[in-house]
Amino acid sequence: MVIRFVASFDCLSLLTDYGLDDGFVGVCHGVAARIAPACPVIDLTHLVPAGDVRRGAAVLAQAVPYLPPAVHVAVVDPGVGTSRRAVAVAAGPAILVGPDNGLLVWAADALGGASAVYELTNERLWLHPVSRTFHGRDIFMPVAAHLATGVELASAGPEVDPAGLTQLPAPVRRVTGQSAEGEVISIDRFGNLALSIMPSDLAQLAITPGSRVSVQCGEHHLVMPYGDTFGAVSPGAFVCYTDSSGMTSLAVNRGNAAHQLGVPPGAYVLLSPEPST
Amino acid sequence: MVIRFVASFDCLSLLTDYGLDDGFVGVCHGVAARIAPACPVIDLTHLVPAGDVRRGAAVLAQAVPYLPPAVHVAVVDPGVGTSRRAVAVAAGPAILVGPDNGLLVWAADALGGASAVYELTNERLWLHPVSRTFHGRDIFMPVAAHLATGVELASAGPEVDPAGLTQLPAPVRRVTGQSAEGEVISIDRFGNLALSIMPSDLAQLAITPGSRVSVQCGEHHLVMPYGDTFGAVSPGAFVCYTDSSGMTSLAVNRGNAAHQLGVPPGAYVLLSPEPST
Amino acid sequence: MVIRFVASFDCLSLLTDYGLDDGFVGVCHGVAARIAPACPVIDLTHLVPAGDVRRGAAVLAQAVPYLPPAVHVAVVDPGVGTSRRAVAVAAGPAILVGPDNGLLVWAADALGGASAVYELTNERLWLHPVSRTFHGRDIFMPVAAHLATGVELASAGPEVDPAGLTQLPAPVRRVTGQSAEGEVISIDRFGNLALSIMPSDLAQLAITPGSRVSVQCGEHHLVMPYGDTFGAVSPGAFVCYTDSSGMTSLAVNRGNAAHQLGVPPGAYVLLSPEPST
Repeated sequence: MVIRFVASFDCLSLLTDYGLDDGFVGVCHGVAARIAPACPVIDLTHLVPAGDVRRGAAVLAQAVPYLPPAVHVAVVDPGVGTSRRAVAVAAGPAILVGPDNGLLVWAADALGGASAVYELTNERLWLHPVSRTFHGRDIFMPVAAHLATGVELASAGPEVDPAGLTQLPAPVRRVTGQSAEGEVISIDRFGNLALSIMPSDLAQLAITPGSRVSVQCGEHHLVMPYGDTFGAVSPGAFVCYTDSSGMTSLAVNRGNAAHQLGVPPGAYVLLSPEPST
Repeated sequence: MVIRFVASFDCLSLLTDYGLDDGFVGVCHGVAARIAPACPVIDLTHLVPAGDVRRGAAVLAQAVPYLPPAVHVAVVDPGVGTSRRAVAVAAGPAILVGPDNGLLVWAADALGGASAVYELTNERLWLHPVSRTFHGRDIFMPVAAHLATGVELASAGPEVDPAGLTQLPAPVRRVTGQSAEGEVISIDRFGNLALSIMPSDLAQLAITPGSRVSVQCGEHHLVMPYGDTFGAVSPGAFVCYTDSSGMTSLAVNRGNAAHQLGVPPGAYVLLSPEPST
Repeated sequence: MVIRFVASFDCLSLLTDYGLDDGFVGVCHGVAARIAPACPVIDLTHLVPAGDVRRGAAVLAQAVPYLPPAVHVAVVDPGVGTSRRAVAVAAGPAILVGPDNGLLVWAADALGGASAVYELTNERLWLHPVSRTFHGRDIFMPVAAHLATGVELASAGPEVDPAGLTQLPAPVRRVTGQSAEGEVISIDRFGNLALSIMPSDLAQLAITPGSRVSVQCGEHHLVMPYGDTFGAVSPGAFVCYTDSSGMTSLAVNRGNAAHQLGVPPGAYVLLSPEPST
C-alpha cells in the first residue's frame, strides 16, 4: 500500500537565526508571498543565537503544537551550502522543512513523530539562481510555499529513512537515589530557567506541588517551594514550578532567576526533596 | 433596556512583554489562527520591559486609535495565575482583552471610555489544559479570537462594574504660577522624551510655537525653542515640540535627548517660559 | 502619448528605523489595515540604525527584488517635517514611497530604474491631522495603502523629474593595477561583511573561486581562500565568497568576521591576488 501525502495548508511558519536587522526575514516572506500569496506566515522567532541548532530545535518543538496544520520552515544552518541534506519531514498534521542537522527532530516528536521524510532535491521547486549561503530564501521557503499550495510532498525529492535523520544529543536527565539530575534547557526573556527534569521525575521523589525542594545550580544551593505560579512566593523569592510547556522550571517572582543564578543553558542542575520545617 | 454587544472583527492586535526570542508571540499567533484563521493579528510591540504595566498601558493607548475596529489583546501580567481578574473591556468600536491590572484603562479612555466590562470566566472559550503562567496563550488570545469571529462578548463571563477596573496612578501634571510640572512618560527609540505636560498647559503659560522655553530635567537646566519639528533647530540642538501623539516632548535634532539628559521614565520635569533675548 | 500608471497591488512592504519597542510599526500597520484591509504588509526591517539613510537604502535594495509586485514604504527620515520632499517612485512592477533623501534610489535601480516620480502633495490621501514628526503614519503609509487599492499614482501629486531625486554618494570601488579597492557596505547579524567590490572586479585580477586572496582591512592583513560557502574553510577560518546578493563578502566559518576585524561599515578594504604556495 502506498499512502501519498497530498494536502494544502492555510499557514506557513518561520523560525530562523537570521535576526531582524538585515531584511533576510522580509525576503523570505516575499518569496513565500510570490508562490502562495494567500497563505499567512507566522514568525516563531528569528532571534535564535546564530548557529545554535539546539536552541532552535527547543523553541520550534515548544511552538508547533499550538499552530494550525502548517508547513513549518526552520533555518538554523551553519552548514549551509555543504553536503548536509535539506529535508521535508511529515509529522502529524504538519510538514517541517529545513536542514537535516537535528533542528527539526524534536518538533517532529512533539507533533507525533516523523511519518515520512523527503530529501529536497527537486530544483524545480527552488528559487533560481540558488545561492550557496541563503537556502532559507532559495530552497526552504520556496519548497514550503509550494507544498502549502498543494504540491505533493513526494515531488520534493526522494523519500529517505526517518531513522537516518540527524539527531541531537539528548539532554542530561536522570533520577538516582534521592535526587533528580538535569540541565538548563532554555532561559526565556523573563529569566525563567526550563530544566530537562520533568514533573514525573519529581513525583518519583515525592516532590509535589506544595513541597519544598532543594536546588543545586552553579555555585548556588537554594531551597524553594514547588509552587504553581510565580505569585506563589513573595516578590524576589525563588519558586520551582511546572511551566506552560510542562517542564520543571525555576523562576524568581517579579525578578530574573537567570541573572541571580548566573548560569547559561546547558548548566547542570540537581533537585532533591527538602523536608518541611 | 439591554444592549448586547455582538459583532465580529476583521482584526486582532497583540501587545506583550514576551520579547521576540522565545517563540511566545508566534504561539499566540498560532492559537489565534486556529480559531480565527481569516483574522490578521497586528503586533503592536512585544518589547515592553518585563512586567512594566505602566509602559505597556502607555504604548497601547497611543496605538489603538489608529487601528481598525479590533479586539486588542494586551499581556503585561506579572500577577499571572494569581487572583487578579482577566477582563474584556468594550470601548468605542473595539474590545480590549487582558489582565485587570491597569494595563487596559488608558487605552479604553483613548477609545472613548469603557462602555462595558466582562470578567473572563467562561472556560469554554479557553485553550485547555490551562497553564498557570501563560494566560496569553491559554486565555487572552483564544477568548479574543473567539470574540473576533463573532462570539457574543457577554458569553465571556459575568458583566462587572467598569468603575471597579484597576487604575494606574495618574502621572504628575500641574501648572502652578509660572511653571508646568510633569514627568517623563516615555522615551522612544530615537531618545525623544514624551512628557505628561500637555500643550494646553504650556498655552496657559503663554508658551506657544516660536517661544523659548526653560527646561529643568534631572541635573540639567536648558533653554530651547518650542518648535514644530526636529529640523526647527540645528543638528545637535534641543527642541521642545508637540509629538505625533499630541504630547509635549523634548528631542535633540539628529541626536538622542535621553542619552544627553540621562533621565529615566518617571523623571521630574519643570517647564517655564523664557523671555526672548 | 501619456501612459497612466493605474494598478492595484496585493502586497505592501515596510522598512523603517522605528525600532520595535514603541508601537510605531504597529500603528503603521493599523493605518494600512483601515485603508487596504485585504493587503498584507511585509516587514523588511525596522532596525535600521536611527537616521542611517545609507543603511536603509542598502537593505531595501537587497530585499525588494524578492517581493511580489508591491507598494514598498520606506521611512528613514531625519529631515521629517522640513522641506525635504515626499515622493512615490514607479520602478519596474513596484512603487516605492518615502522621503526624497536617497533612501529609495538604490531600490529603484534594483527594480530596473525609476520610470516616473510623483511628489506627494495630495492631502486627500493623507491621514489627518498630519503631525510634523510621524509622516510614516500620516503620509507615507496612507498614500501607499491607497495606491495598493488601485488609486492612480498620478493622483498622489505632480509628476517630477526622476533625475532630480536625491542621490547617495556611491561607495568607493576601484580596480587599479593588481588590487581592488572598496569599502564595507554592510555587516549582517552573522558578522559577515559585504563589500563594494564585485566578483567582476576580482575576475579582472584573475581571482576566481578556488584562488587565494590577500585582504587588507583595518589593521589586518589576511590571506584566505576565495570559496563558495562558509564550509569551504575550517571552522574559525576566514573565507572570501560571493554572497547571496551577488556581493563579494568576507566571513569566518562558524565565527564572526566583523568582531575579529573590528571594522565598521564604510571601512576601507583592499583585495589582491595571492600566489598559490
